[in-house]
Amino acid sequence: MKKTLLAAIFGVIPALTLAHGVLAEQPIGIVIHGGAGTINKAQMSASQQQAYETALTAAIEQGYAVLQQGGSSLDAVTRAVIVLEDSPLFNAGKGAVYTFDESHELDASIMQGQDRNAGAVAGVTTIKNPILLARAVMEQSEHVMLAGTGAEAFADTLKLVRVPNNYYNTEFRYDALKRAKQALSPQPHQAKMPFDPAWRMGTVGAVAIDKQGNLAAATSTGGMTAKRYGRIGDAPVIGAGNFADNSSCAVSATGHGEYFIRYQVASDICARAKYQGKTAAVAAAEVISELATVGGTGGVIVVDPAGNLSWAFNTEGMYRAMLGSKTPLKVEIFNDKTAD
Amino acid sequence: MKKTLLAAIFGVIPALTLAHGVLAEQPIGIVIHGGAGTINKAQMSASQQQAYETALTAAIEQGYAVLQQGGSSLDAVTRAVIVLEDSPLFNAGKGAVYTFDESHELDASIMQGQDRNAGAVAGVTTIKNPILLARAVMEQSEHVMLAGTGAEAFADTLKLVRVPNNYYNTEFRYDALKRAKQALSPQPHQAKMPFDPAWRMGTVGAVAIDKQGNLAAATSTGGMTAKRYGRIGDAPVIGAGNFADNSSCAVSATGHGEYFIRYQVASDICARAKYQGKTAAVAAAEVISELATVGGTGGVIVVDPAGNLSWAFNTEGMYRAMLGSKTPLKVEIFNDKTAD
Repeated sequence: MKKTLLAAIFGVIPALTLAHGVLAEQPIGIVIHGGAGTINKAQMSASQQQAYETALTAAIEQGYAVLQQGGSSLDAVTRAVIVLEDSPLFNAGKGAVYTFDESHELDASIMQGQDRNAGAVAGVTTIKNPILLARAVMEQSEHVMLAGTGAEAFADTLKLVRVPNNYYNTEFRYDALKRAKQALSPQPHQAKMPFDPAWRMGTVGAVAIDKQGNLAAATSTGGMTAKRYGRIGDAPVIGAGNFADNSSCAVSATGHGEYFIRYQVASDICARAKYQGKTAAVAAAEVISELATVGGTGGVIVVDPAGNLSWAFNTEGMYRAMLGSKTPLKVEIFNDKTAD
Repeated sequence: MKKTLLAAIFGVIPALTLAHGVLAEQPIGIVIHGGAGTINKAQMSASQQQAYETALTAAIEQGYAVLQQGGSSLDAVTRAVIVLEDSPLFNAGKGAVYTFDESHELDASIMQGQDRNAGAVAGVTTIKNPILLARAVMEQSEHVMLAGTGAEAFADTLKLVRVPNNYYNTEFRYDALKRAKQALSPQPHQAKMPFDPAWRMGTVGAVAIDKQGNLAAATSTGGMTAKRYGRIGDAPVIGAGNFADNSSCAVSATGHGEYFIRYQVASDICARAKYQGKTAAVAAAEVISELATVGGTGGVIVVDPAGNLSWAFNTEGMYRAMLGSKTPLKVEIFNDKTAD
């Protein structure tokens, strides 16, 4: 009773103290996404839908198993993102889209909430799992962000699985590139042309909270179909496509990267939670809704320090799943949640 | 009197309304920096100090002239940064530091507050004024951030002054590289070694507000002496080294870039102003002070929508200047303001 009384006097209830003074167990949980965008239910076959749901389920279960075994949220998001990177279904790792020059350039980032340490790579071409290189940047370098051939040179100093660039080749992504190039052909150069929203669907990500109450976020992508000019989207930009801070929330984003950078989507959600006292879920819904009003499409997955798992998106669908000690498994694709 | 009374009742005074109800003219103003770090007064000769003060004065006056003539804050920060880029004294443009491989890789970013449009380039090697390429990314492409050879390929489609990479060669920066490499030589590879703070001093930037009340921010740098592995610092990362939003503030940062990315220095200052109702100056002082407690060194320049100009830094010095319609010219270098 004394603890409850003190809490009442000070106007707060310590997050992990139950009303009768017993310390509750720290909730654990993980949320993942496999990209948001124009996901047309009518055009998706039952077997396609099943394939996506199977992959999402594998990723969320492997990530959650790490947490259940007492592993860190950093390990959990790394594990889940590796599963998604290794699947050809998602625009990250194996399933990365093609650049204009018919190759693949991948971006990834990772961040942990206890000390806001972070790592990111942009434009890497031979790393089987870019999320592991991002993590190495965080853990084994003095830097946060490495790009291009320099990032590959750093990878040369590490024991990471390397692949030839054609490892990422898939027929359906190549077809997507051909369609994109056809649409771009009348333009003087692509940098001036608004992209078809369908070309930027993709990105995978995970956010988690572990038994120590630490938050982490990871994001990985192949970027935008037919991208040129060394374009960097939001995925490797801390604060835009990725953010984790134990004092507010962890976020991984997917969508039209340029808007996510300009509107600082990931860190703005956490700033509203921290400075306005909103729940992270409410802040995420607000930010994604406001983003739609300026033309930015996409979505986010979110976890807060109390272990609340949520997502928000302003597109037709977002490949997504969540699972936590206080949250039953959800695997969803469309806006109307019929993939439950 | 009625307006004053209403303001008193509602507890606010509309920013641009004088007490007797006459609409005041929108204040204009500009703040610039030329880098923060270990600037030892005892080791700086009178002629060196004078050279810095002369360059800072030229930059602030040229930027302010743009505003006085009714030009945009975007044009003003561009103009001021070009002056600083063209000076060999600052680590940006002409005076860019050397990479480990004895070349130069430059980063820059620009953002305007009315629509949060932004442009950034990382790792460019042949652009005389990287801030102009960042601006072209913002104004002439669908993207926000371009890197490396891709960014140069985009530059090939534009009319921008190009230079051979040795344009950026300066003797004193080469001496700095030689000292840095000597210090690095016992290390297996540099990515694991904490850098001497002196090697990352640099970066230039400007923030301004124009007669339309629009804010803008620009940041440009040669990065870190002896940098490798395609390292990207905070200068081209929107939210870290650069931010502008008419609803809160505009910030340009300089310092240990990795900390500025992890702590989202530029956008966190504006988030505190927007969500906590703090003045941008107070928010900046808070963020820079908190950054020092986790080991992050550097500083920021700030302008708010009411035309208040400020700076904050936690280093021995920061090359800096401010000038506005309600702010007399200040040109300062050291912490004790003796450069006034």
